[in-house]
Amino acid sequence: MSELDELARRRGFFFQANEAYGGVSGFYTYGPEGAALKRNVEETWRDRFVTREGNMEIDAPTVTPEAVFEASGHLDDFDDMLVECPECGVSHRADHVVEDNTDVEDAESVPTEEVEALIAEHDLVCPDCGASLVGQPVEGFNLMFETSIGPGSGQPGYLRPETAQGMFTEFPRLKEYARNQLPFGVAQVGTGYRNEISPRNALLRAREFTMAELEFFVDPEGEGPDLSRVADVELPLYPVAAQQAEGEEYLDLTPQEALDEGVVQGEWVAYFLARSKQWFDRVGVDMERFRFRQHLPGELAHYASDCWDAEGEVGGDWVELEGIASRTDYDLSKHAEHADDNFTVFQQYDEPKTVERATVDPDMSALGPQFGGDAGAVADALEALAERDRSAFEGEEVTVEVDGEAYTVPTEQTGFAVEEQTESGRHIVPHVVEPAFGVGRAVYTVLAHNYDEDEVEGEDRSVLRLPAEVAPTTVGVFPLMDKDGLGETARDLAADLREAGVAVTYDDSGNIGRRYRRQDEVGTPYCVTVDYESLEDGTVTLRDRDSTEQTRVELAELPALLPALRDGEVTFDEL
Amino acid sequence: MSELDELARRRGFFFQANEAYGGVSGFYTYGPEGAALKRNVEETWRDRFVTREGNMEIDAPTVTPEAVFEASGHLDDFDDMLVECPECGVSHRADHVVEDNTDVEDAESVPTEEVEALIAEHDLVCPDCGASLVGQPVEGFNLMFETSIGPGSGQPGYLRPETAQGMFTEFPRLKEYARNQLPFGVAQVGTGYRNEISPRNALLRAREFTMAELEFFVDPEGEGPDLSRVADVELPLYPVAAQQAEGEEYLDLTPQEALDEGVVQGEWVAYFLARSKQWFDRVGVDMERFRFRQHLPGELAHYASDCWDAEGEVGGDWVELEGIASRTDYDLSKHAEHADDNFTVFQQYDEPKTVERATVDPDMSALGPQFGGDAGAVADALEALAERDRSAFEGEEVTVEVDGEAYTVPTEQTGFAVEEQTESGRHIVPHVVEPAFGVGRAVYTVLAHNYDEDEVEGEDRSVLRLPAEVAPTTVGVFPLMDKDGLGETARDLAADLREAGVAVTYDDSGNIGRRYRRQDEVGTPYCVTVDYESLEDGTVTLRDRDSTEQTRVELAELPALLPALRDGEVTFDEL
Repeated sequence: MSELDELARRRGFFFQANEAYGGVSGFYTYGPEGAALKRNVEETWRDRFVTREGNMEIDAPTVTPEAVFEASGHLDDFDDMLVECPECGVSHRADHVVEDNTDVEDAESVPTEEVEALIAEHDLVCPDCGASLVGQPVEGFNLMFETSIGPGSGQPGYLRPETAQGMFTEFPRLKEYARNQLPFGVAQVGTGYRNEISPRNALLRAREFTMAELEFFVDPEGEGPDLSRVADVELPLYPVAAQQAEGEEYLDLTPQEALDEGVVQGEWVAYFLARSKQWFDRVGVDMERFRFRQHLPGELAHYASDCWDAEGEVGGDWVELEGIASRTDYDLSKHAEHADDNFTVFQQYDEPKTVERATVDPDMSALGPQFGGDAGAVADALEALAERDRSAFEGEEVTVEVDGEAYTVPTEQTGFAVEEQTESGRHIVPHVVEPAFGVGRAVYTVLAHNYDEDEVEGEDRSVLRLPAEVAPTTVGVFPLMDKDGLGETARDLAADLREAGVAVTYDDSGNIGRRYRRQDEVGTPYCVTVDYESLEDGTVTLRDRDSTEQTRVELAELPALLPALRDGEVTFDEL
Repeated sequence: MSELDELARRRGFFFQANEAYGGVSGFYTYGPEGAALKRNVEETWRDRFVTREGNMEIDAPTVTPEAVFEASGHLDDFDDMLVECPECGVSHRADHVVEDNTDVEDAESVPTEEVEALIAEHDLVCPDCGASLVGQPVEGFNLMFETSIGPGSGQPGYLRPETAQGMFTEFPRLKEYARNQLPFGVAQVGTGYRNEISPRNALLRAREFTMAELEFFVDPEGEGPDLSRVADVELPLYPVAAQQAEGEEYLDLTPQEALDEGVVQGEWVAYFLARSKQWFDRVGVDMERFRFRQHLPGELAHYASDCWDAEGEVGGDWVELEGIASRTDYDLSKHAEHADDNFTVFQQYDEPKTVERATVDPDMSALGPQFGGDAGAVADALEALAERDRSAFEGEEVTVEVDGEAYTVPTEQTGFAVEEQTESGRHIVPHVVEPAFGVGRAVYTVLAHNYDEDEVEGEDRSVLRLPAEVAPTTVGVFPLMDKDGLGETARDLAADLREAGVAVTYDDSGNIGRRYRRQDEVGTPYCVTVDYESLEDGTVTLRDRDSTEQTRVELAELPALLPALRDGEVTFDEL
């Protein structure tokens, strides 16, 4: 990947932040080209997963109080395994040391004591200095950045490791904005932080990164998506069975086929797999180097019922670009448990339903003297039993258990009855389907998949074949030279194009060939040159990045033509 | 402001984050309407200060290593004055306690010991519990959130208090992207953090906030802006003299007039004052409640040569919305001093210049025996003297001082000469003009200035008269009712409008009047109703928020008409 990293730095896509001060690993700055590419990628995501789906988007703070991560489990469980070298003092991910030097493949899910044992068994050493790591403690290291809020000793706060909790903690308000109608989706595009032990691979494992997450709240018994809208999308699926067979063959199935064949569980997961594939294709991920890999049983979070990772192949490795998880009601239930608010949604029935409810009304004047202080608990147990099993009340006596002890009550003293009640709806804790994207990883993969070298008129060139929609610049505008009014005409054109919402780079230095190369290298799909003919007949040269072909077009047409080319409404070949 | 805050919460503009867990002051979540409004405000800023100015935009991390803030001065100087109540333990801003209870107006610039003395002199008490604060220490409290990067004890990092340092520390790369041509501007829209002692007034003094900053790098001797582009902008200026005279009268001057009359120093400051005013007007800040206030001498940062705050009046107070500062070469010089990189720009002359340079070439075989170990320092002193004062070499002897001691050297031993040299340019440290905006403050002010209550057909209504360009939703689409195909037609229209890039809210619940009220309250400028007539003749009702007037238009025209209305290319009255 060195050409790409060199290009990224030289042309301003991304580079390590604060290099003038030696830098700190895991922190990257997007330069002008990279920031524009990233913003365009985010805009297409917003278009696809917010606007067109009719979802909402919010913007929550990154500094978050401790109580939220107590509830979510991050405070206890968001750990990586750390082992410190006794000689050089460098910290390593213990699971990576084991994976890199043994046959163990998924050391992350192995308990720390066993990792210590594996280090001893294989006599593993510090990857940096070679000193033995045998006998060094392997410890959990929480990946959240901690800080302190407010003056004095303050109160603990953490930089969010994902944007998701913002959607969960504010659910009691968000459901109001959705007028309590399920399903509805809430998205966020924003910064996340993970204090990685060993950041590596540039944007692929950074300590500060941008995520795009959608939390889609559904009634598990409610209507599914309209799968006809994605009927023709073929999903390259790599399910558990194929992975366990160590096969590398993917199933190419439509969402409906994947559901029918039982490969994917859940219609919404199938739907978002299809929408995700369409989006990755749109931003320029190579569909020949793309797949959906199902989480293995050991990998799956304990609360998740199914999870698929969208993966792109970069430099021979498969990189996780997105996780699509069916998270059940875990998140909202956890917050309902810990927080003081209502995380349910009242789902109104189309028509009120008449239901039979078994109730009890125990005769406390009889139970009280008989059971003393336990009478209340016995009454509660009778009520629970009635809801659970009406047949228990068919005999003369009913027996319930309280704290391991059996209490027998004559049925007539229970006040058991079955009544008809009219219900207009029910309170449910929605389930969550979560497509969660790493924006930096997508940007990096798009760059890697579109970087190309070819030869033009006998000269080597580097070219980024970015889709026009996400390219940092849509058009380079050049005067042949800056004299005889060519410069003025070109500058006026640049201003008109900006007015029309087109991203323009104006360049009047060096020969035209060199200016083309500069734009090719940053992925600019089109270039326009204003020359002497332009002053005579009002036409300019329009040049296509990928084919390097050129054609003459009317200068006056460009403010309409370039947006059309960018948005795919017309192709260069049609001109 | 209670109606606005209530509306903000109820309709999803903004609300305190994590309220389900009691919340933490100073942290706000933008709900769906607020996040959309904020994004639109940011987009117009980008259009005005990046795209149309031909500037660059970058995206740097928020977690920043300590060395950067050592250089910038934030580690030492970014303090607020804190006094803690000995009874209830609550911390307060000591300067605010003094300002709120004495005649002292700018306690922030008073030394801490004097603030302690003022507290004693006026017998000031805790605003919360009334206990005396006399004798309590007043201490500086650094407002940066601190964290630790990496495993173990890690290295100290801070959440950036402004986005600016990202543009300064990366200057050595940014100047390459600008091909070393001054002036050039680098912008960033991103999060900043200040651990305020007492956050207050919702978005106006939050602990986590969004900023939009432009660092414009100039050659102080280079060409200024083309002021003819902003010749007709009248600036409501409130300069130091008017403030000191305690007047409330503003000078209404164009940028050129302000420069000619010596009110504003520096052409670029005048230029950005004009562009800022245009932008605030465009996003909906009321120009009757807007001014530019010049910093008073005590308020001005020691390195700044001039600074103006754009202020908006909200609830009777003037709120700082933007600071436009002329920061000289302070920032880049500080980083050049502390960091290992080159923060200068080589400015090529139009034509090479021939300059006379005085040089020395001391005869070390004579100086060595005479001055011993000091000979080198004497030679350096001679060189410096030659550059500074040629006339010192006119006599027989030259005397220089090294570490307080005088050394006399015969002139002939100095090898003094004046030579002609040809220089093609010079290395300069660029000066910085910085327009820095608080995005949340702008959003809050726009909401406050556009919130209105009126009466429509005998009913009270709340209406946000937001400019169409920044309104969260451009058009509400309603079927008269969801039957007889009205719903389908309306849904198809909504999909077509989204395809055309229009922000749509679809609403089919409640009577039409109520649906209008809902959209009025969130500032939606237009609503379209599909009724039975639509099915017959293909027309719909288009309704204007501000006038509440209605007109019939062709349904098929809407995908072109609504963007035109939003972008101001056509007005409702013209339909």
